[in-house]
Amino acid sequence: MQFKMSDKIMRVKPSAIGEILKHSSDPSVIAFSAGNPAPESFPVKAIKQIIDEIFVENPIGALQYSVTEGYAPLRQALAQMCAERYGIDMSENEVILTAGAQQAIDLLCKVICNEGDAVISENPSFVGALNSFRAYNTELLGVEMEEDGINIQELENLLKAKPNAKLMYLIPNFQNPSGKTMSWEKRKAVYELACKYDIVVIEDNPYGELRVAGEAVPAIKTIDTEGRVVFTGSFSKILSPGLRVGFIVMNKALVDKFTVAKQCGDVHTPILNQMICHKFITEHDFDAHIKNLQEVYRRKCTLMLEHIKKNFSEKVKYTVPEGGLFIWCTLPKEVDMMSFCSRAVAEYKVAVVPGTVFDCDDNAVSQSFRMNFSAVSDEAIIKGCEILGKLTKELLD
Amino acid sequence: MQFKMSDKIMRVKPSAIGEILKHSSDPSVIAFSAGNPAPESFPVKAIKQIIDEIFVENPIGALQYSVTEGYAPLRQALAQMCAERYGIDMSENEVILTAGAQQAIDLLCKVICNEGDAVISENPSFVGALNSFRAYNTELLGVEMEEDGINIQELENLLKAKPNAKLMYLIPNFQNPSGKTMSWEKRKAVYELACKYDIVVIEDNPYGELRVAGEAVPAIKTIDTEGRVVFTGSFSKILSPGLRVGFIVMNKALVDKFTVAKQCGDVHTPILNQMICHKFITEHDFDAHIKNLQEVYRRKCTLMLEHIKKNFSEKVKYTVPEGGLFIWCTLPKEVDMMSFCSRAVAEYKVAVVPGTVFDCDDNAVSQSFRMNFSAVSDEAIIKGCEILGKLTKELLD
Repeated sequence: MQFKMSDKIMRVKPSAIGEILKHSSDPSVIAFSAGNPAPESFPVKAIKQIIDEIFVENPIGALQYSVTEGYAPLRQALAQMCAERYGIDMSENEVILTAGAQQAIDLLCKVICNEGDAVISENPSFVGALNSFRAYNTELLGVEMEEDGINIQELENLLKAKPNAKLMYLIPNFQNPSGKTMSWEKRKAVYELACKYDIVVIEDNPYGELRVAGEAVPAIKTIDTEGRVVFTGSFSKILSPGLRVGFIVMNKALVDKFTVAKQCGDVHTPILNQMICHKFITEHDFDAHIKNLQEVYRRKCTLMLEHIKKNFSEKVKYTVPEGGLFIWCTLPKEVDMMSFCSRAVAEYKVAVVPGTVFDCDDNAVSQSFRMNFSAVSDEAIIKGCEILGKLTKELLD
Repeated sequence: MQFKMSDKIMRVKPSAIGEILKHSSDPSVIAFSAGNPAPESFPVKAIKQIIDEIFVENPIGALQYSVTEGYAPLRQALAQMCAERYGIDMSENEVILTAGAQQAIDLLCKVICNEGDAVISENPSFVGALNSFRAYNTELLGVEMEEDGINIQELENLLKAKPNAKLMYLIPNFQNPSGKTMSWEKRKAVYELACKYDIVVIEDNPYGELRVAGEAVPAIKTIDTEGRVVFTGSFSKILSPGLRVGFIVMNKALVDKFTVAKQCGDVHTPILNQMICHKFITEHDFDAHIKNLQEVYRRKCTLMLEHIKKNFSEKVKYTVPEGGLFIWCTLPKEVDMMSFCSRAVAEYKVAVVPGTVFDCDDNAVSQSFRMNFSAVSDEAIIKGCEILGKLTKELLD
């Protein structure tokens, strides 16, 4: 038969960079293109020990159906963690477990937005979130990123011009892909604009714990007196992404409808996986684990920055992130970014992600590309930067 | 702030029977209201042994990000299982892993239906699927169930009258909630109508392996020469629902867009959970496990039927299912079903699910209620049937 698919799903275009990403799984390629956390950071032994305990204490509970909102002890532990670590004071009934932060973002859009409503995002931004917004047939609008976060003037102009804007999507800490962190001044300004123009804000914080330099900046959620900021987090970068456990913290007025959406989505997040997360943050030394993670990421980030500096043409600009997984490089106008990325992988076997992938505008051009330092070995970082550096110098110097 | 939620999510009404279901978790209540598989059927030891092996063989693989389509060896094993057990001949590239069959149904609706398109379902049917269709703002249309499945004449009338119908949702084996199985003649007739009126069919098969009587009827998918039947299955009733692993088998023309939808939904199904399912069906004696399951369910089903027969007023009609988890009882018109269910739980501490929950029409009235025999002990089955029987006799005889 000839399938006629929904308009909303047709909005999500197959990416032109599929070919480049396909090469990334070739073991002979140095893949700076991943978004994976460092595998050496997975606490394999602790997780195995936790599973052993669960299968002694409550195997049936770990295997039977459970409630949509999430494992109650984990909701409680997360409420406490949000209070202690982020100064976010919410009740455990306002915490819902999700399949990574991805599901939290996706379902919140479903709960808030009709087709044709506008979603405003930092531009560039996390493609997973952008595709979720597209797949609900919303109008996706990007606001330029400056060094200290979203351009506030441009944001207000857009809010003024777009009364159909319902949702704003932000990654204030070590943004994906730009690596930039939003200043405290901008966080306050964003919140004021959200109130003024009556819009819900998703504050996505997948990388918040991965700070390797500078001082922590409080979450926007900490100043949210109106309940319009929804805070999302994930165990993907602090424990294991394969477990697919994330969470959303939101005003209780949103909880019922979000729960309905989650029930339609997957009934509940796997209960064994939730129990693992719960035991890990409550019975193991979570602080020590995070400190260890930060050390691994600090070393890898510093190494990549060092070797970019040593090898790349000086005409290539790049961010110096205070945390997260990514460095964002920008080529001068005289070089075609897309063919740079294609040559890098096809001729030199180093994969990076072309910046166009992260653009709110499907037809945007970009001079930037994203490099990941967490999922590659130190040797690969050194060798890959040398190779890419040579290519930049060949094209630019 | 005053939240304005999406029209689609407002379509899913909080159920009027929340109170009854709330009582179900009270340990002093006999809960015939659950949809849970029998906990004694979980192969706890085998699952633990499998996890031990995974943590020796490939712990990083079990914890790292994975691909959206699913764990390749499991896709292959499921393609083989569908061929061998169901006569469904599809390539492993046409199998996608999902968060239970719930996600498969939800995302397929997202891929196929625009808002306002019609979805046709057996009536009554599985509330999880119905709510998914509602939450995409489709027009939900129910077709009456007869003893041998959907009313074919009524189905054709509806298809004729509704050119906006895009999707049909069916549970041919031991339907939830009715317990009825669609005859082979009706399966062929449904497929012919689907072709004639150019509509996609979801053949949901969560209970297919739980046959306790009668002869297996081939799946509609086995006669699908046009690729319009999508087959969904789940590990929830044959291994563990808490793991949240299901799958969808569909024409390759649908695979790319379904994968995009899944990527937005949760990136991928937890990889550890998929590995557990893979090892269980390929390295353990799956046939013996299913035979054991069928024995447990046969005993429980027979016991409940026996004690319904012994205790209930003869004016109460009920289905004699050939498998699955449910018995569907219907009260004569002179009794108000809703107050029967309310009294049963409030005064007598036996919970059943009022039939209205499963109706495609939010405002329907029903004379029926659903009883589950899998999640309760033998003693509870005997005692609960006695209590309910007394109430039926008090009201009817």
